[in-house]
Amino acid sequence: MTAKDTLEAAITAQGDVVRKLKSAATKDKAKINEEVQKLLALKEQLKQLTVDGDGEGEAKASPAGTDAGPPGNRNLSLKTPKGTRDYGPEAMALRQRVLDQVVSVFRKHGAETIDTPVFELKEVLTGKYGEDSKLIYDLKDQGGEILALRYDLTVPFARYVGMGNVFNIKRYHIAKVYRRDNPQITRGRYREFYQCDFDIAGTYDPMLPDAECVKVVCEILSTVGVGAYVVKLNHRKLLDGMFEACGVPADKFRTACSSVDKLDKTPWEEVRREMVEEKGLSEETVGRIGEYVTLHGGRELVDRLAADDKLKAIPGAMEGLEDMRLLLQYCEIFQIADRVTFDLSLARGLDYYTGVIYEAVLLGGGGGGGADQQEEEITVGSVAGGGRYDNLVGMFNPKRKQVPCVGVSIGVERLFSIIEARVAGKTRTNETEVYVASAHKGLHLKRLEILNQLWAAGVKAEHSYKLNPKLLAQLQHCEEYQIPYAIVLGDGELSRGVVKLREIATRKEEEVPLDSFIEELRRRLSAA
Amino acid sequence: MTAKDTLEAAITAQGDVVRKLKSAATKDKAKINEEVQKLLALKEQLKQLTVDGDGEGEAKASPAGTDAGPPGNRNLSLKTPKGTRDYGPEAMALRQRVLDQVVSVFRKHGAETIDTPVFELKEVLTGKYGEDSKLIYDLKDQGGEILALRYDLTVPFARYVGMGNVFNIKRYHIAKVYRRDNPQITRGRYREFYQCDFDIAGTYDPMLPDAECVKVVCEILSTVGVGAYVVKLNHRKLLDGMFEACGVPADKFRTACSSVDKLDKTPWEEVRREMVEEKGLSEETVGRIGEYVTLHGGRELVDRLAADDKLKAIPGAMEGLEDMRLLLQYCEIFQIADRVTFDLSLARGLDYYTGVIYEAVLLGGGGGGGADQQEEEITVGSVAGGGRYDNLVGMFNPKRKQVPCVGVSIGVERLFSIIEARVAGKTRTNETEVYVASAHKGLHLKRLEILNQLWAAGVKAEHSYKLNPKLLAQLQHCEEYQIPYAIVLGDGELSRGVVKLREIATRKEEEVPLDSFIEELRRRLSAA
Repeated sequence: MTAKDTLEAAITAQGDVVRKLKSAATKDKAKINEEVQKLLALKEQLKQLTVDGDGEGEAKASPAGTDAGPPGNRNLSLKTPKGTRDYGPEAMALRQRVLDQVVSVFRKHGAETIDTPVFELKEVLTGKYGEDSKLIYDLKDQGGEILALRYDLTVPFARYVGMGNVFNIKRYHIAKVYRRDNPQITRGRYREFYQCDFDIAGTYDPMLPDAECVKVVCEILSTVGVGAYVVKLNHRKLLDGMFEACGVPADKFRTACSSVDKLDKTPWEEVRREMVEEKGLSEETVGRIGEYVTLHGGRELVDRLAADDKLKAIPGAMEGLEDMRLLLQYCEIFQIADRVTFDLSLARGLDYYTGVIYEAVLLGGGGGGGADQQEEEITVGSVAGGGRYDNLVGMFNPKRKQVPCVGVSIGVERLFSIIEARVAGKTRTNETEVYVASAHKGLHLKRLEILNQLWAAGVKAEHSYKLNPKLLAQLQHCEEYQIPYAIVLGDGELSRGVVKLREIATRKEEEVPLDSFIEELRRRLSAA
Repeated sequence: MTAKDTLEAAITAQGDVVRKLKSAATKDKAKINEEVQKLLALKEQLKQLTVDGDGEGEAKASPAGTDAGPPGNRNLSLKTPKGTRDYGPEAMALRQRVLDQVVSVFRKHGAETIDTPVFELKEVLTGKYGEDSKLIYDLKDQGGEILALRYDLTVPFARYVGMGNVFNIKRYHIAKVYRRDNPQITRGRYREFYQCDFDIAGTYDPMLPDAECVKVVCEILSTVGVGAYVVKLNHRKLLDGMFEACGVPADKFRTACSSVDKLDKTPWEEVRREMVEEKGLSEETVGRIGEYVTLHGGRELVDRLAADDKLKAIPGAMEGLEDMRLLLQYCEIFQIADRVTFDLSLARGLDYYTGVIYEAVLLGGGGGGGADQQEEEITVGSVAGGGRYDNLVGMFNPKRKQVPCVGVSIGVERLFSIIEARVAGKTRTNETEVYVASAHKGLHLKRLEILNQLWAAGVKAEHSYKLNPKLLAQLQHCEEYQIPYAIVLGDGELSRGVVKLREIATRKEEEVPLDSFIEELRRRLSAA
């Protein structure tokens, strides 16, 4: 199936979603708009694919302002930039809910938060992301500094720590980052997306901060509720030691690493061929690597490797193993031993890791299957990853002083998608507790007065901005926005000093006195 | 005093702040770093001023990568881009607290939230900001679309509403916007800053949404607590009508408007001269304008203007006055009549306003003074502003359909500065409830076990990442971070099945059984 076929299929499916929503009995306008925008984004992608021929390039933009018509009639491109989207109220409500859960875990572990500018001096980002540096968004040089949008939150964090002479900090940072990647809107991958990082900087004893990062990952995945997952653990020093033991020359450690990194998506046979044919490693060396990288397990694997004659000769490998032994011990105390696995195939792409590395993947299968089934479970992708990077901060310190760091980045965009797909019904987008309605014409001043009393009492309240709205329209608004109560004003009731308090879900109405309706409302809201 | 003098004075003062902090008995590292960064920013500004000669231009950036040394030794510029800064934990905690208050008011009025990309197609922003368009940050054209960073949140909102065929929405949006303005770091003005907007889009009856926006401004300023303020109100149609009545030609309404807009900072005599000498209006016309723009008051002013012979002849002016009459009536019902003033000198710079406009200013004087003193009170600047813009959404709608809008932008950066200046002592930056400490060596595994129990129970807990930290250092950490309790572990206590629970502020310690310390802790935390 070509990229074009895939897109066309996605457009057809998305068109169905939109049609279904539009034909539903109760129309959810926000949701419809949301889905229409997704559809438009897909169509735009198809258009670009057709223009470029291969789907890799950029759309040809018509330069702004060349349009001949008068300004009022210029044909604006009615879209957001390629690979970006708007987030409507429903998407935002859902994202906020997930982020709140993530932050509550960070806070439970004592983290503070910081913020850095959305752009950095280009030189700060240069040389940190290997081949992917081409995906950095540059700003136009307008006779000033050379700037670029941040690509992740780790490098800005290291700059903050190094530049500010901070010697220890435990911080989280939730912000958007920017990558001119090929957007895959069908898979929820955009060029502007949230990162959600938790890092511990400071000179501490081995594995105590590292184990807490792994614990944080487990708590978040369990709290958000994404189903079965496993956190793979490995160590850069052990990986390098393993390569050395297998006969890989030192200058090929990183390139061997990036081959091994593909093992989560690519079969060994293919990775093997790449290492021999493209990276120029000997059949024998690669064969030895193959024996190691298929290993995974727990503390017994640490013991086995510690007794391995080839590895025993390499001090770095032994150091890595001692770290792994400690880490697994701490994971047992943290009661996450059943969530982690020591996996020699985990390599991770980034250059700056120097110690423990980890990656959480969701398990597609029915997590409860037998032990022998576990091997076959399909992983549906990484939802968190991180590791130790002890040599990054020094690059940003005037005196080159290093501050060791370990951290984790939560793949919240993946979490949003998973939760979004699972939500049945409409997510509430406001917090209004009561709607002030008129039963008939001529009551708008009274409505304002009642509203003002409610606001003064701290009650979340709204009304129609029409002078004489229809009662039915007002009640439908309450249902659409899931507002639990309405106060219905009418001359008859007002003359008797009462208002009607209506429970929207049950449609039950009760008269309550004007001088105590707020107390009654509060009583009901706190009982709910 | 030249710009250079001002900066040098500011640097001296800031240097004093830093020295004082560094010599204090209890060193607050976070605060010191915060202030050091401000000092560095000021010095950078002075450097640029010296390079440019006039302080208006840009620093000459040395192109990245031209440095001759090996990559590890390259001299990175250790700074954030011009006009930006990092926000450390303390600044963030304070900002978050203020934003939470602002959001709670928006939510009390039933608002939802949305988000849009940080950049837009350049053409979306073109022609919306008049002369200030030169301050827009452009992205580099990398063979794709022409993009620019958002300059405000109003235009992206109008694009969202128009493009998505949204017909009514009440939303808030809190996000950073970007202006290549001359940063005034001494006055807390940066090139990257938060905007905090609340807007109501939809076809409604006159002044109902408008009055609610004014109410929202008053609630926010009262909630955040910024002292005495007044919300100035005026109307674009009345302003235009007034210009017409005074004999200003229609094509000079906007330029006359921008002169009048300066009256909050500039004396009438100077504005008068500008209108006559630079804008080419006759002495007589300007004299007539002068009579109007010095007027301010309440409903009696509406009556007086409605009876004004020159204005009576102009339908637009009468429409504006009818709106003002209604708005003032609704403000009375909302009990904010004493907070608002109908002020004919309020003009506001932006082109897109079409109806009511408003601006909240803080009053510098002692708000409680006599009525005759009020005239002399010095306004210390705008903290919120907005108005009605009925013709903006149509520019972004495929069928040019208009959706009327009214909204307000809260100047949160001003609010942050005001609150920051007022805070005495350190702002708490984490939420940790209990610190798990060791009284002596060899207890780290027990600490992890206790921590794990606390986390499982949902208690916010942390410890030292050192195997054998000194007890004093652990307790100092609690004091520095204002953590209320510590659990102190010791072999003696553990052998008797108890731990010490220490209240940090009072230094009182009590033994509690290992099997009930969490309940005891919870009891105390909820009593606090």
